[in-house]
Amino acid sequence: MERIRLGMVGGGEGAFIGEVHRMASRLDDRYTLCAGALCSDAKKAASSALSIGISQERSYSTYQEMASTESDLVAGIEVVAIVTPNHLHYPIAKEFLLAGIHVICDKPMTIDTQEARELIDLAKTSNLMLAVTYNYSAYPMIRHARMMIQSGELGELRVVHTKYTQDWLTEPLENTNHKQAHWRVDPKKSGVGGCVGDIGTHAYHLSCFVTKLKAISLCADLSSFVDGRRLDDNAHIMIRYEGNTKGMIWSSQVAPGNGNNLEIQIYGDKGGLVWRQEQPNELIFTPINKPGQTLLRGSAGLSENANALSRVPVGHPEGYIEGFANLYREIADALMIYRSGKKPSSGDILFPTGEDGYDGVSFVEAAVKSNNKGSVWVSL
Amino acid sequence: MERIRLGMVGGGEGAFIGEVHRMASRLDDRYTLCAGALCSDAKKAASSALSIGISQERSYSTYQEMASTESDLVAGIEVVAIVTPNHLHYPIAKEFLLAGIHVICDKPMTIDTQEARELIDLAKTSNLMLAVTYNYSAYPMIRHARMMIQSGELGELRVVHTKYTQDWLTEPLENTNHKQAHWRVDPKKSGVGGCVGDIGTHAYHLSCFVTKLKAISLCADLSSFVDGRRLDDNAHIMIRYEGNTKGMIWSSQVAPGNGNNLEIQIYGDKGGLVWRQEQPNELIFTPINKPGQTLLRGSAGLSENANALSRVPVGHPEGYIEGFANLYREIADALMIYRSGKKPSSGDILFPTGEDGYDGVSFVEAAVKSNNKGSVWVSL
Amino acid sequence: MERIRLGMVGGGEGAFIGEVHRMASRLDDRYTLCAGALCSDAKKAASSALSIGISQERSYSTYQEMASTESDLVAGIEVVAIVTPNHLHYPIAKEFLLAGIHVICDKPMTIDTQEARELIDLAKTSNLMLAVTYNYSAYPMIRHARMMIQSGELGELRVVHTKYTQDWLTEPLENTNHKQAHWRVDPKKSGVGGCVGDIGTHAYHLSCFVTKLKAISLCADLSSFVDGRRLDDNAHIMIRYEGNTKGMIWSSQVAPGNGNNLEIQIYGDKGGLVWRQEQPNELIFTPINKPGQTLLRGSAGLSENANALSRVPVGHPEGYIEGFANLYREIADALMIYRSGKKPSSGDILFPTGEDGYDGVSFVEAAVKSNNKGSVWVSL
Amino acid sequence: MERIRLGMVGGGEGAFIGEVHRMASRLDDRYTLCAGALCSDAKKAASSALSIGISQERSYSTYQEMASTESDLVAGIEVVAIVTPNHLHYPIAKEFLLAGIHVICDKPMTIDTQEARELIDLAKTSNLMLAVTYNYSAYPMIRHARMMIQSGELGELRVVHTKYTQDWLTEPLENTNHKQAHWRVDPKKSGVGGCVGDIGTHAYHLSCFVTKLKAISLCADLSSFVDGRRLDDNAHIMIRYEGNTKGMIWSSQVAPGNGNNLEIQIYGDKGGLVWRQEQPNELIFTPINKPGQTLLRGSAGLSENANALSRVPVGHPEGYIEGFANLYREIADALMIYRSGKKPSSGDILFPTGEDGYDGVSFVEAAVKSNNKGSVWVSL
Repeated sequence: MERIRLGMVGGGEGAFIGEVHRMASRLDDRYTLCAGALCSDAKKAASSALSIGISQERSYSTYQEMASTESDLVAGIEVVAIVTPNHLHYPIAKEFLLAGIHVICDKPMTIDTQEARELIDLAKTSNLMLAVTYNYSAYPMIRHARMMIQSGELGELRVVHTKYTQDWLTEPLENTNHKQAHWRVDPKKSGVGGCVGDIGTHAYHLSCFVTKLKAISLCADLSSFVDGRRLDDNAHIMIRYEGNTKGMIWSSQVAPGNGNNLEIQIYGDKGGLVWRQEQPNELIFTPINKPGQTLLRGSAGLSENANALSRVPVGHPEGYIEGFANLYREIADALMIYRSGKKPSSGDILFPTGEDGYDGVSFVEAAVKSNNKGSVWVSL
Repeated sequence: MERIRLGMVGGGEGAFIGEVHRMASRLDDRYTLCAGALCSDAKKAASSALSIGISQERSYSTYQEMASTESDLVAGIEVVAIVTPNHLHYPIAKEFLLAGIHVICDKPMTIDTQEARELIDLAKTSNLMLAVTYNYSAYPMIRHARMMIQSGELGELRVVHTKYTQDWLTEPLENTNHKQAHWRVDPKKSGVGGCVGDIGTHAYHLSCFVTKLKAISLCADLSSFVDGRRLDDNAHIMIRYEGNTKGMIWSSQVAPGNGNNLEIQIYGDKGGLVWRQEQPNELIFTPINKPGQTLLRGSAGLSENANALSRVPVGHPEGYIEGFANLYREIADALMIYRSGKKPSSGDILFPTGEDGYDGVSFVEAAVKSNNKGSVWVSL
Repeated sequence: MERIRLGMVGGGEGAFIGEVHRMASRLDDRYTLCAGALCSDAKKAASSALSIGISQERSYSTYQEMASTESDLVAGIEVVAIVTPNHLHYPIAKEFLLAGIHVICDKPMTIDTQEARELIDLAKTSNLMLAVTYNYSAYPMIRHARMMIQSGELGELRVVHTKYTQDWLTEPLENTNHKQAHWRVDPKKSGVGGCVGDIGTHAYHLSCFVTKLKAISLCADLSSFVDGRRLDDNAHIMIRYEGNTKGMIWSSQVAPGNGNNLEIQIYGDKGGLVWRQEQPNELIFTPINKPGQTLLRGSAGLSENANALSRVPVGHPEGYIEGFANLYREIADALMIYRSGKKPSSGDILFPTGEDGYDGVSFVEAAVKSNNKGSVWVSL
Repeated sequence: MERIRLGMVGGGEGAFIGEVHRMASRLDDRYTLCAGALCSDAKKAASSALSIGISQERSYSTYQEMASTESDLVAGIEVVAIVTPNHLHYPIAKEFLLAGIHVICDKPMTIDTQEARELIDLAKTSNLMLAVTYNYSAYPMIRHARMMIQSGELGELRVVHTKYTQDWLTEPLENTNHKQAHWRVDPKKSGVGGCVGDIGTHAYHLSCFVTKLKAISLCADLSSFVDGRRLDDNAHIMIRYEGNTKGMIWSSQVAPGNGNNLEIQIYGDKGGLVWRQEQPNELIFTPINKPGQTLLRGSAGLSENANALSRVPVGHPEGYIEGFANLYREIADALMIYRSGKKPSSGDILFPTGEDGYDGVSFVEAAVKSNNKGSVWVSL
């Protein structure tokens, strides 16, 4: 089976998420990374390309050139991974969709919902895939949690608590040379949301994905604790989902001791579930009036989808890269269908797509709007 | 040193917290329980008294009789522990204060703030002690956390997250014979708050006690998930403390798998602290840019107050009863001062008093008010 | 019901375990501590007695005087708790048994098995109780583990791993004024075993108690890591139980970071159990081919005995003192039977008695013998 | 930089470790898998090759043919990964070394020490690399532990406890079609050790690698708990390292609830370390008389080597595949030196080589010898 021809925009030297996408794409050997516009600085783009084995002729200085050239090649890239700062997602995705190339876009998908809607429509009319890497939704035990909820093991859902806390912006890192910090606190590059956009959207997506519930309204109290910071670095959000389910979301980048502490707790009238990203191989299930159970990735009795996304036996920990690679695997399956001239039916697709991307941006907009009006309730 | 003569109202057969107060009072051998009105049912009161070693002549059918008789005895009780359902706290406390007897009152102190203020005033003018058993504030590692914050080890406080979740009311237990459930969901006996009053107040008190911050305003989203339940069984609360510190409080009695899951997380610009009641001997300290530390009760380097409230060496777990007994120990110390004709200076008192009781009731009122107005922000 | 009249030998100022016994005896209000020979130093004995409420006329300078006088009193003590260094257990226990007084003896019961056998025989012929405080066997979840094994939930037992590790003797604490350290490393006061006697015996007893298996042989590798220390401070032991069950015991007092880390793991052909003393409210049960379960003290579905020894609901942690108090409660029940002129049938007694004390001493002797012969296998 | 040309022997359909090697080789994109003798069944070999992208002309029916053909190709493989059952390691490794091809061999390296020595000598005289995949030694936090010990942070080492427990052979899985189980319990394919060879060697290697200590002697008690099983499925081993350090090793494949529970604890006179494979991103450090610390992969202050082997930031869990990939990365670095006509100096090599392989086999032989003589001490 011929490998999928993958391109990348962003992800040059010093980047974080680009390398993650690359490792994720390699793990199952389904992709060949063959083109890139890795950096807006042409020199850096070239040296970055060299270091990761992209040939010089397919290392581009601009994404426009890349889209145009690759779409003309017989064996040009079939899909592009966009791993730039947020504000560039939209123009780049648009360019590639217009060039007939599938898109894998990092989150948040765009700066605002208008852009998001436009990309969705464009992908639809072009019959192209638009995937968004809300990667945490692809951990096997998250998939198992979703199946359990779907099959009623928790009963009627009542409460969903999600938190995503980090500490790396506790100090004004943006005043140093730290590239990652710099654009994340800049409204021009990040959009209206800071922490709420960078990681709050992950938490929000995860809560909706696992429960299969839509959120209806929220009330947000955002803070910028670090002096001079223009975007929020801590977000407290109360949220209401459809069907009388209520939740809270806390995302923070100023909580010392929190590395990448994404956690979701879900309680229904028959039981509860707790999952922590930092120990992703475990899912705690607490059926009412019975002992709590620790469900382990790779163990007997898990759902088909959880097993399909599992690579090594129980007790051999899988982690962040494997979870991310699961998205790439599912995207590869979808792209094979496109290759064959068909289109995957939306029911078959579990990886996040444009609609999820839209919802995430909508969440950020709503949180900021709520906060700006005095932390009142706003609809989603 | 002569033991303190203690009386008890409430705490007859089938009660929960009364026996806890008794065990707490015994641990350090500072009290003699010598009188009681253990039950409104006279027969049960007598048999309860018999079973715990209270003589028949000092087992009373009514608390009024008890207050009156004991205050006339040469060696009558010096202090009474009130462990009845909430709505009786006020009349009983008032009766004993009027009779010149010190009061230890379970929480929430009263049904409303008016009653609370009245008791505070009465205690003040009578020169009597009014203690409220927010027992979680007396765990050694909570005391250590408070000292660390006071001494600046966390820097300027930014975020405080407190949750207190249980599962015992997930089902409509009040429709059975379950005595504890029955009064807790009855507005006449519990007051306007259900879960928020029963355990939310513990969380609230703990957050203020540890941080030494006052809360300014809150926004509450209360739910009664169980059909027909008239009081909240789940509370989501966003809160703002003085000095730009923000927090969230989640209390629930419908979260399957949660036994008595009180947890507090506090983050400042120099570090974080996490404490969990179910593992109370540990305090996680995460100074910024350094490895996280697990501080253990009984280990070297703790604050004086933490050590003073510790009974056995590190690794020998202390628990709920020991924590509760710490309050009784500190109250005994205070009562010794009263015995000597003096009054403990408020700065010396770490155990919760009437003002803390007032604040707790005020918190419940504010949460219910916020919720009833559509989950808007209200001042505290 | 009249409280049991308790006396104590040892446990004066600066002692550790004496105060534990006292707190344990108070928790359920079944005992009155009314006499003591708390210290060999007469002055200290008197001041210690004063501080814990023993009247001066029943504070004795010698245990001999105490035994003799108390046995003559109409309301003399019914039972004595012996909480001295090891080498004194035997003469004191003998004295009180001869005086017709029941004995609660700390562990190890004696210095050698000959003494142990003598005490057993004496108690038997005198129709007196001889209890030994292997306190860890009285935690509710340990009792539940025992019931599970007895009822076959683990199948045929294969492997039992027990460790008991501490760190307080990592440095030569015996060269300071540390009273506890001093006698523990002195062969004259501790006997032939150091760490293996002080805590190894706890591990050994626990393994036999929970599994109901007798040990057959062992092979021990003892070390005295601290320069100049004459007794072992670390013990590695391989052990064989009856019925082809095998085990390892590791006890250490030189393992930095280990407070009181007693842990037992038991595996049969149908499942496993893990219990850790530092989190005694949890018992991990791993039935084969099913998710692991966390069984919680106070939760639904536990065995009768576990529930009987539980004081507060699930999630309200109980600890070391409560566990110890469970022994005192069961001993009180037994003493009530003696009081009534009968004798508890051995099948009703779950607390450790003279035979358990003998086995513990026998274990120490075997371990030392094995080690001295070059760490060979010796029978038990 | 041209990718290293990798071949593989074993690892056809249904295999476990072969796919792990492949994923490990892909993660950093340093290798191209271009040849294989994936299965002794020619048909299966071909279909396996097809499914993983090896061309038909370089898919071989026998390893002999593969070695011979590839060594003649201009761009033949530079290194072969041997991932067959144990008994085939030796003949295959020999064949490829003789053909001038570097070898990556799974563990245990050979069936006996004689074979092991022969391979070491052959590699040496041929100037070829012989790597052995004791993969657990390549986790970043293990490397950090090693550096800490080397730099004296634990002081003089006293005790090393290592366990590696699994549960997958609790039942007689070898009586089913389970391929993995089948050869592991067959002395002809596994060698004289069962569990002790399969996973005990990992534990042993890890203990020596981290501490940099050599083992001197051991005393082993092996069991075959499952009826009819000819090799051990549980091993209890007491061990003595040089310099008066003592240890215990427990490996089991019949411990229900244990997935892949490799754990090492090391105690010196200045502190302790605990690392658990199932949570490999954490290293617990307990300096004496100070709070315990949780050192996290990716956090500030770790050693250079730990950071070099870390791919994603703190809190983004890395796992088993990443750890395995670290070996492949270091092997790639070494092969690049060979490519340049030089030889890596042994001091630069941290990945396990033939000598480690030899030591592992020697450990198995000693354990079996000890056991067969009645569990006596034997030298290593």
